Amino acid sequence: MVFSSKLIEDAVDQIAGLPGIGKKTALRLVFHLLKQDEKTTVALTDTLLKLRREIIYCEQCHHISDTKICNICSSIKRDRSLLCVVEDSQDVMAIENTAQYQGLYHVLGGVISPMEGVSPSDLHIDSLLKRVPDSEVKEVIFALSHTMEGDTTTFYLTKKLRECGVKISTIARGIPIGSELEYTDEITLGRSILGRTTYD
Amino acid sequence: MVFSSKLIEDAVDQIAGLPGIGKKTALRLVFHLLKQDEKTTVALTDTLLKLRREIIYCEQCHHISDTKICNICSSIKRDRSLLCVVEDSQDVMAIENTAQYQGLYHVLGGVISPMEGVSPSDLHIDSLLKRVPDSEVKEVIFALSHTMEGDTTTFYLTKKLRECGVKISTIARGIPIGSELEYTDEITLGRSILGRTTYD
Repeated sequence: MVFSSKLIEDAVDQIAGLPGIGKKTALRLVFHLLKQDEKTTVALTDTLLKLRREIIYCEQCHHISDTKICNICSSIKRDRSLLCVVEDSQDVMAIENTAQYQGLYHVLGGVISPMEGVSPSDLHIDSLLKRVPDSEVKEVIFALSHTMEGDTTTFYLTKKLRECGVKISTIARGIPIGSELEYTDEITLGRSILGRTTYD
Repeated sequence: MVFSSKLIEDAVDQIAGLPGIGKKTALRLVFHLLKQDEKTTVALTDTLLKLRREIIYCEQCHHISDTKICNICSSIKRDRSLLCVVEDSQDVMAIENTAQYQGLYHVLGGVISPMEGVSPSDLHIDSLLKRVPDSEVKEVIFALSHTMEGDTTTFYLTKKLRECGVKISTIARGIPIGSELEYTDEITLGRSILGRTTYD
């Protein structure tokens, strides 16, 4: 792409460096900002800087928060006997958006991955193992990715948590609602047969 | 969408207010920035502010520029006998990217639109009418939108420019390269028959 202006070229390069945004979308955004008042750009940049500088993580569950203890951990409406273990804050938001879960969370900050040099000490595992025995938690629900690393992490934590005498479960894997059997991949279909649920 | 953090909610709202970006993409960008060093966010916001505050417009053609006279107007390689009239700087960039045009440009800043209250005096029309007689321009090429407003503007300017004795043309309208006749809309197909070119 040919740019007549170094300022535009720099801005397009910066924006196109963000995930999921190409050069054409970046150029459209640049022209959008140029057409608006300067205060639109100032508001956008102020919000982004404030976000990056002021965000903190909950001391208890490590979820992104505006306060030392997040609004999920501090809510009196949540069921304190359930604890859902997830990889990151995006997973917490995804589960919260279902409105189907009323328990607490624990954000690990990733999964154990020897290939990428992520060991248990790099994750919020110590705080999980300290947190569970001292608490009202009766069931720990694992909601980690169904990859080798995710499964390894679930297995590792399950072994450690068994000693605490809590019930351990993982979220159901199977055929997504609305999908057709014939278009489901073999691994998902195979697991959904092995992990079938019985009608009561 | 449920957000656990006001900072994230504000940032998502700001980003999702940009054209072509939805809430999900905005949330992905927010988490991307949070995962990166603070300096990534600072670099992005600095570039956007610098762009918005320092951009200027070429005094001659009104194209976006870093200097008082843009690099197209000041280039000795351009053909000064051709002047292409466009609506905005994005059109200049689109034409420049084709690498098929070596003349100069004139950016009107819009088209005449009585419905939206845009009259000739709101556009860079005076400077066009002053610029053409004093110059080496032999042909003015109109590259405005093929809407009622665009056609009105072309008609208005054609009348004014005829007095200067320059040749006047418009860019070709017709069936896009690679399109099939049967899927082309009726107006385009109709005009492409009326405006057919003869083989020499």
